[in-house]
Amino acid sequence: MTTLPASPAAVDAPARQNRPVRLSVDCMGGDHGPSVTLPACKVFLAKHAEAELILVGKPGALAEAAAWPRVRIVDASEVVEMHDPVEIALRKKRDSSMRVAIQQVKGDDAPADACVSAGNTGALMAVARYLLKTLDGIDRPAIASVMPNQHDGYTTMLDLGANVDCSAEHLLQFAIMGSALVAAVDGKEAPTVGLLNIGEETIKGSEVIKQAGELLRTAHASGLINFHGNVEGNDIFKGTTDLVVCDGFVGNVALKTAEGLASMLSNFIKQEFTRTPLTKLAALVAMPVLKHFKDRVDHRRYNGAALLGLRGLVFKSHGSADALAFENALSRAYDAARNRLLDRVHQRIDVAMKTLPGSAVAAVADVVPSPRQAA
Amino acid sequence: MTTLPASPAAVDAPARQNRPVRLSVDCMGGDHGPSVTLPACKVFLAKHAEAELILVGKPGALAEAAAWPRVRIVDASEVVEMHDPVEIALRKKRDSSMRVAIQQVKGDDAPADACVSAGNTGALMAVARYLLKTLDGIDRPAIASVMPNQHDGYTTMLDLGANVDCSAEHLLQFAIMGSALVAAVDGKEAPTVGLLNIGEETIKGSEVIKQAGELLRTAHASGLINFHGNVEGNDIFKGTTDLVVCDGFVGNVALKTAEGLASMLSNFIKQEFTRTPLTKLAALVAMPVLKHFKDRVDHRRYNGAALLGLRGLVFKSHGSADALAFENALSRAYDAARNRLLDRVHQRIDVAMKTLPGSAVAAVADVVPSPRQAA
Repeated sequence: MTTLPASPAAVDAPARQNRPVRLSVDCMGGDHGPSVTLPACKVFLAKHAEAELILVGKPGALAEAAAWPRVRIVDASEVVEMHDPVEIALRKKRDSSMRVAIQQVKGDDAPADACVSAGNTGALMAVARYLLKTLDGIDRPAIASVMPNQHDGYTTMLDLGANVDCSAEHLLQFAIMGSALVAAVDGKEAPTVGLLNIGEETIKGSEVIKQAGELLRTAHASGLINFHGNVEGNDIFKGTTDLVVCDGFVGNVALKTAEGLASMLSNFIKQEFTRTPLTKLAALVAMPVLKHFKDRVDHRRYNGAALLGLRGLVFKSHGSADALAFENALSRAYDAARNRLLDRVHQRIDVAMKTLPGSAVAAVADVVPSPRQAA
Repeated sequence: MTTLPASPAAVDAPARQNRPVRLSVDCMGGDHGPSVTLPACKVFLAKHAEAELILVGKPGALAEAAAWPRVRIVDASEVVEMHDPVEIALRKKRDSSMRVAIQQVKGDDAPADACVSAGNTGALMAVARYLLKTLDGIDRPAIASVMPNQHDGYTTMLDLGANVDCSAEHLLQFAIMGSALVAAVDGKEAPTVGLLNIGEETIKGSEVIKQAGELLRTAHASGLINFHGNVEGNDIFKGTTDLVVCDGFVGNVALKTAEGLASMLSNFIKQEFTRTPLTKLAALVAMPVLKHFKDRVDHRRYNGAALLGLRGLVFKSHGSADALAFENALSRAYDAARNRLLDRVHQRIDVAMKTLPGSAVAAVADVVPSPRQAA
């Protein structure tokens, strides 16, 4: 892949900006399909009086939504199943709801501003990349999501699994794109960036991480990002920085480890409170407090990962999302589109390419072949 | 470093096996020094009627232990501080309590069978490696520890931070050493081994991980390990396998992420139960249940990481350990020594070197220079 400097025209906001924000929704994706996505869309529409939706699904499957206001239904004859290999999604199911939904955000005159799917991650990333292509200056899209933190806010983290072998330049690209995401969705124009490492000192970590630290410091000195320095795994939940950057392997392990621990602790609490009649009584008394605690760390509130670096906005919901979780993914996509995330990423990358010595951002694309290109 | 096949004599149990198990303790290490280590040693001695201790500390600092039974005090004039760089510990403080304690486990006629220190990890690893050297067939020592799991047991994991850039062969070495550790401490002769990855399928992961998968499958076919396959971050807490193998960067991030999440959740629970007079009342009622829950996941119970791959047993306690936690580290070291962990690691590596085609285990040592050799 060759990355050329972005033409100024490409950075301009597209014409579609003057109409209400419109999302395309892969209604068939995820473990539950329309039984979850449709109720979520209904609640989302009620909460966002300006929003419009393009619902994509099998003919007839979305019939109940036909009469809803601000909705258009688009048929797709196939569905990418959760266990379908990437190749099937990419080469066989050419009329899948996933693919048709992504198609809606392609091009400057695209019908929709962001696409949301709960379909399988590998397929979604591959199809989105194939259809939309990457932005100038980006050779690897990344997956960004949020985790709750000690400040009752959340920490944005990327990459969470799209890229297993990352170079220092990739990590810089992630930092720039992630900063644009936090700026768009959280309104923090100069979010702090942490580089995930195994110690705070600059001498710590692998060779790639040390090189990435150098690049991030240079980008910080150029005013491109607000680099805090190295952070460790526990800083994600401490909320030491707004953004945590890491390669997809490490990010995915951290995410799954956190999910696994949360799940175990939640089971243990349940077990303890149902052990005897006496503990069940204690549970009754403690219920409202535990409920409040549970709501505070409810993972459904954090659903909706952004696929960053593509020429179109795509958001990924957890496959097992229920209606509340899927609605949150819709809201995140809506906020991102409304706050022009795509243009912001584009602009930041464009400035970075013009600013950094030797074009550290783009350099990698000419040198390193992307292992995902074949996918 | 050159790794030679182990001579049969080296695998034989040393003469010291016929006396009671004896630990050497760096009493000055950790955030609290003797105020924590001495009470821990006292309780440990009371619980282990056969055990003997060599207590190492500054002259006079351990005076209260002079009259204890089964104890010998050894003086050391210096202390490796928690913030001391590796170079200071290694080259300047040649009479540190850490170094003298490690010296006690060196050689076949060593006075002690295992050493325990709460001193800083980098210094401990470097000094231990310098004094003890690595076992034949091992070119990088690793840090192994345990995490609680859903089965109310624990999952052993390595490496947790000693090696940031690992090859597939290193991961195989970790699997073999880790299996010996679980066999020695938990009595499971063929513990299941999981390779930490970002998906269960063999095609997932980085190049190194895929190669490691191949090596581990070969080792499994040869009966050297009981390889389950790939596992993900959440499997650590599910207890899918007895052992989880990963490089030190990923392992350290996973460990710190888990610590950070646990700490945040624990703070949130405290906050919720102290929010109002009513929730404080609920806390009183729920107290015994919460206490039981807390005990179950108390990280102090899991204190005591093994430094594996050295010609002597060294255990690392968390620097901030209290007496209960430090006592657990002592107990883990005691169990490992009593069950001849060192001989077991030696034997397994020796068999692996003789069994695996092209000596996959040792091959790496001749090819890849260890970045830690200079330390």
